Amino acid sequence: MSFPKVYVENIKKNLLHIGSINSGNIGYNRLAFSNEEKKANEWLEEQLKDLNLSVYKDSIGNVHGRLGSLDKPAIAFGSHLDTVKNGGLYDGALGVIIGLECLRVLKEHGYQGVPLELISFVGEEANPLGGTFGSRATAGLIKDGDVSDVELEKFDLNMSKIKEARKSDNAYLSFLELHIEQGSVLETTNNQIGIVTAIAGISRMHVHVIGKASHSGTTPMNARNDALVSAASIIQYVSERATKQNNDIVATVGKLEVFPNSENVVPGDVQLTIEVRGSDWHEMKEFEQRLTDWMNANHRVEIAVGVQKHPNTLSENVQKAIEKTCQNSKVNYHYMVSGANHDANSLTEITEAGMIFIPSKDGLSHHPDEYSSWEDIEVGANVMLQTILELSKKVN
Amino acid sequence: MSFPKVYVENIKKNLLHIGSINSGNIGYNRLAFSNEEKKANEWLEEQLKDLNLSVYKDSIGNVHGRLGSLDKPAIAFGSHLDTVKNGGLYDGALGVIIGLECLRVLKEHGYQGVPLELISFVGEEANPLGGTFGSRATAGLIKDGDVSDVELEKFDLNMSKIKEARKSDNAYLSFLELHIEQGSVLETTNNQIGIVTAIAGISRMHVHVIGKASHSGTTPMNARNDALVSAASIIQYVSERATKQNNDIVATVGKLEVFPNSENVVPGDVQLTIEVRGSDWHEMKEFEQRLTDWMNANHRVEIAVGVQKHPNTLSENVQKAIEKTCQNSKVNYHYMVSGANHDANSLTEITEAGMIFIPSKDGLSHHPDEYSSWEDIEVGANVMLQTILELSKKVN
Repeated sequence: MSFPKVYVENIKKNLLHIGSINSGNIGYNRLAFSNEEKKANEWLEEQLKDLNLSVYKDSIGNVHGRLGSLDKPAIAFGSHLDTVKNGGLYDGALGVIIGLECLRVLKEHGYQGVPLELISFVGEEANPLGGTFGSRATAGLIKDGDVSDVELEKFDLNMSKIKEARKSDNAYLSFLELHIEQGSVLETTNNQIGIVTAIAGISRMHVHVIGKASHSGTTPMNARNDALVSAASIIQYVSERATKQNNDIVATVGKLEVFPNSENVVPGDVQLTIEVRGSDWHEMKEFEQRLTDWMNANHRVEIAVGVQKHPNTLSENVQKAIEKTCQNSKVNYHYMVSGANHDANSLTEITEAGMIFIPSKDGLSHHPDEYSSWEDIEVGANVMLQTILELSKKVN
Repeated sequence: MSFPKVYVENIKKNLLHIGSINSGNIGYNRLAFSNEEKKANEWLEEQLKDLNLSVYKDSIGNVHGRLGSLDKPAIAFGSHLDTVKNGGLYDGALGVIIGLECLRVLKEHGYQGVPLELISFVGEEANPLGGTFGSRATAGLIKDGDVSDVELEKFDLNMSKIKEARKSDNAYLSFLELHIEQGSVLETTNNQIGIVTAIAGISRMHVHVIGKASHSGTTPMNARNDALVSAASIIQYVSERATKQNNDIVATVGKLEVFPNSENVVPGDVQLTIEVRGSDWHEMKEFEQRLTDWMNANHRVEIAVGVQKHPNTLSENVQKAIEKTCQNSKVNYHYMVSGANHDANSLTEITEAGMIFIPSKDGLSHHPDEYSSWEDIEVGANVMLQTILELSKKVN
């Protein structure tokens, strides 16, 4: 077999077509479980059928397209076609479209190795059923009671459909996801490929800061118990402490609400969420404990535990295959942790999963101005293609 | 004439009756221009008629009840019967009910001095037409274009009705308003009466704090431009600077909104309002300039000017009449600035206005738990009654 390459014009044409399926005026809008997500997946099915691949939509809507036997374990790859509201062109869709191009090229070149399977997962972005929905179902990570039946029904889903979508532990030999970085590390370090070592864990605390509401005109400064002034002190402490850590921990107060939130009332209550992410759960919990101790010592707070997701290490075998490909192709690469969650994270449950990042301009993502250059996309797509062949070689 | 006294049981009964006119379950709800406010004013009209006084509702709904000739300037007094949402029993209603009791007592004692007039002003609390609506109309302070005709129509009002409600500059000899303090100064200084020297000015700045939204997981701490961290620094600076001032300035960030306000997004924008109140406009503006200079030097902000209300000095003659009454009655009193706005503030435009404060437990107001003791209410009501007589003596 000759040394195959992707045809970047195909990727461009297909990505722009997916982008044209859009329900909004600002950026790209194919929300999880929306008609637009469905249309995009139907279009993908058509493309896969045109390549004479084995195509099916599973019980929850994930699209699978396979080159090779359906009876043997496959090397799988893919991502998702849904977007956040007012999102960008690349997040999710790029990984699926590049996967499609890889299948087209390999089919054209008469690929005869182990089966290859492209998967487009539904509902990856934040949604009422939880993000990475399609991949979590595939990996058997959605358990009875995790989501209410009422919520499921709204999307024409139920637990038996979810269980039916589950793949066995030997369905796949490995899973590979190409995604934009959504950060600025590759851009600032001048690398074209990120090899992801782990998906960061997430731990959120919901903090109720308790003060006492009073009239802004009649309450002297020294008689105030201003919950927003306390919250401000907490926000600064969280940011300063995280910046001073000498590890990969990041911490964010992204959501905050003031009560009663009136120009002439000293705030009585503030609700805010502290999110901690990092690649080491123990470090994350130590950091959180420090925040908690400090808040309890300095402010009146009630703290409730929110989302708890452990960090997840990705397959070393897949990392090595990507590295070898980069070295062979003389592409600059960088080992890094993914701060964001991805479908590949779910797949670690049932197979060896890995991720390839390509640069995001200014680190911008979940935004209409999200951008990756066609040059970086072409490099990434060829690294993806060669990595698939590298993984396939190991099996054969 | 003997030395008249109020009968506190009347005040109690009437205040609780007004409290029973309530549209909500939490605290007291007679919102500006609501049916409940109207009902309360209708009840007041009945009470005034039962005393055989000259009673009328003016073109915008203010209720006037007069003892004595309608053709001569009167000593006026009163307050308002509307409340904020989930408000307290005392704010506004107490001043009207005590005024009613003063009229009853004086009528019973055969008062023969200059005419006395109780006024219950509509729409004093924050509302779409602006707070202190009824008293501002009475004082001719609402000008063409201040409120849109569309908004006025919603309340069955228009500019010609507003102008019709205006009183001439010689309609009243003076105006006296008894009100709860809504702060904790009297309670902490152990005084039963506050003699108000001025209504604090209000100056608000709407500050847009500009950062850059980015993914909370993929943006390293040192690559962030977090608008909420900047806002936190501003909130703390405002509070610290105001606390350190050696004047009566208070400053509050009471309203704040985060955009996009999502747990997994570093905040890109924050909108907040800084409110400054004080009795000296020059000091207030100097303080604001210091905040503005500091914000511009340390953060990226866009500042828009909001509400601008100059401080307003109350009548020295009225202050002296209240002081003399307190001295005669051996009641502890305290000269003070009112941080909150009141109907008396509007009346300074057309007459000599003054205010009597009575203590608020824990300084709590605009809250279901607002409380003033019947003992303090009785003392305040008698000071009010004697001050009316004192002011009346000066004319006769």
